[in-house]
Amino acid sequence: MTNSPVSDTRTAVPSLTPLLSLVEADMVRVNATIRERMDSKVPLIPQLAGHLIASGGKRMRPMMTIAGAMMTGAPPDQRAPAILLSTAVEFIHSATLLHDDVIDESALRRGQDTANALWGNDAAVLVGDFLFARAFELMVESGDIRVLGRLSAASAQITEGEIRQMGITGQPDTAVDEYLDVIAGKTAVLFAAAAAAGAEISGGSPELVAAMHDYGMQLGMAFQIMDDALDYTADADAMGKNAGDDFADQKITLPTILAWQDGDEDERAFWQRTLGDADFTDGDLATAQTLLARHDAIDRAILRAQAFAESACNAIAPFTADPQTGALASALAEAARFAALRTS
Amino acid sequence: MTNSPVSDTRTAVPSLTPLLSLVEADMVRVNATIRERMDSKVPLIPQLAGHLIASGGKRMRPMMTIAGAMMTGAPPDQRAPAILLSTAVEFIHSATLLHDDVIDESALRRGQDTANALWGNDAAVLVGDFLFARAFELMVESGDIRVLGRLSAASAQITEGEIRQMGITGQPDTAVDEYLDVIAGKTAVLFAAAAAAGAEISGGSPELVAAMHDYGMQLGMAFQIMDDALDYTADADAMGKNAGDDFADQKITLPTILAWQDGDEDERAFWQRTLGDADFTDGDLATAQTLLARHDAIDRAILRAQAFAESACNAIAPFTADPQTGALASALAEAARFAALRTS
Repeated sequence: MTNSPVSDTRTAVPSLTPLLSLVEADMVRVNATIRERMDSKVPLIPQLAGHLIASGGKRMRPMMTIAGAMMTGAPPDQRAPAILLSTAVEFIHSATLLHDDVIDESALRRGQDTANALWGNDAAVLVGDFLFARAFELMVESGDIRVLGRLSAASAQITEGEIRQMGITGQPDTAVDEYLDVIAGKTAVLFAAAAAAGAEISGGSPELVAAMHDYGMQLGMAFQIMDDALDYTADADAMGKNAGDDFADQKITLPTILAWQDGDEDERAFWQRTLGDADFTDGDLATAQTLLARHDAIDRAILRAQAFAESACNAIAPFTADPQTGALASALAEAARFAALRTS
Repeated sequence: MTNSPVSDTRTAVPSLTPLLSLVEADMVRVNATIRERMDSKVPLIPQLAGHLIASGGKRMRPMMTIAGAMMTGAPPDQRAPAILLSTAVEFIHSATLLHDDVIDESALRRGQDTANALWGNDAAVLVGDFLFARAFELMVESGDIRVLGRLSAASAQITEGEIRQMGITGQPDTAVDEYLDVIAGKTAVLFAAAAAAGAEISGGSPELVAAMHDYGMQLGMAFQIMDDALDYTADADAMGKNAGDDFADQKITLPTILAWQDGDEDERAFWQRTLGDADFTDGDLATAQTLLARHDAIDRAILRAQAFAESACNAIAPFTADPQTGALASALAEAARFAALRTS
């Protein structure tokens, strides 16, 4: 990697490294704040929350807030409110993960036992509620009611997205647009609000705030489509979850929608029996993968993700020429392209 | 009742009626706002939330916010922010009820099937999350970051209280002080924050805000102790839940703690087998009721609730002499005494 002569050229394989380097110092502060603010006099809370939060995750959402703040040119000592917001964003995301795992009855996340598997659904629901409330305390502390508005609206939209996802679960004939609406709500709005809030609380111009919102939205769409596409290809090591989890959960995602649309009568009967009626037998996942390959459904989904990634790049393109913001804007563009790379 | 010649004297049986009359016009506005703001483009949300919220409930918490606002003397046309906050308080409370019913696996609340029984745990968790997020949107709209701070801190404390309640579940030797701490968190802090927030957002003096906070706290304690005590005496018609629900759920409440403390070896073995080990047989609830009666545990718990109710009265006593606030303060005092009346 370090010996690669093309690693700095525009045609190199996109990497997350430039963005990670730029936000690294602030993310150290965010991680310290996460540990500090998940604490409670009730020991179960830091235990359970720590298990989830310390288990890794890419911290993409809090990174959006930091990037938004840094894009304004605010110096590090004026980014304390953004650090609090960034922590709040990770807590909101963690709360939704805890509740998702309860709802999906998941036993494995990021390669580890889920909190609900270890501590029970009751504790996972309540600690999720705690993290959500604590997120709002952090936002209040950050002192800007505009960002509270952004993030509370995003939180409501996330749950609307999750409920709509429940609604399309087991419906293999779901339309692409409906799927896109669902993932916009359950995933992309938080990326968007996180990025915009970081810029807004750090005194960014309305143009920058709007650009970061748009960037986050498009990146979030790319991110979720890739997550859904790779569920049929990745192994547990790479994804931290098992390939085919979505299939077993009857989740309707872009690859299955495309395969349904192009499928003949027999293929649709297969999708209806499995995704529709949860009547699974051995070998069904392999059959699903065969059908997805027959219609190029994974690759076509990834192309769609790449189109969203390009839209994300376009959203911040006006800032790449500015000497103040150019390096970070270019790193954000590269991160968006990285998010839509096929990784298995 | 209408013929009773003593109904207006100080020694009459306390009633909620005077308070209800004074807040009635605002509560009509609150109820309209509740219906309006639980709406969503996702039909399941108003269906499920409406089932819970329309099923009644005493609306005690939002009433606290309205009373706090009215105590400031703010005229009706300046109480719009308090109406929003009051709605937010009911949504926070409703969210905790939805999640509680999931956790307790309750099938009946207020005499009706629970939301989780009708729509499933998944939907109840997510709609609870939605109401919580929507509550914060309403608070943002109310425009005062101080009340956001109060209500977000209260929300975090509620979940801490609920988690601590999980921790003492099945522990019949729990200390009274620990029980009081638990109910302060899970119940009283929301009454306190609701009452204080109503006064604060309507321009109340620091003294009034503090008094309403204290009033709400003490009233909330009385309210929860009574709820716990009556669980062993009420029938489903009066309580909207079944007598002995707490017993079956291994919940440790003030009556059981008092009976444990005064119990002999055989009695403690009974509480350990039932509340401790969930090894129930027919007739156990009747035995529990007999043991509670032997030690006067229900009546002693009610006396404790009455002491909290008197503390609530004391908290607002300075305002009963003021011609501007006297009628409402007296009605609040009477409501506190009503909350600690034995009703079965």
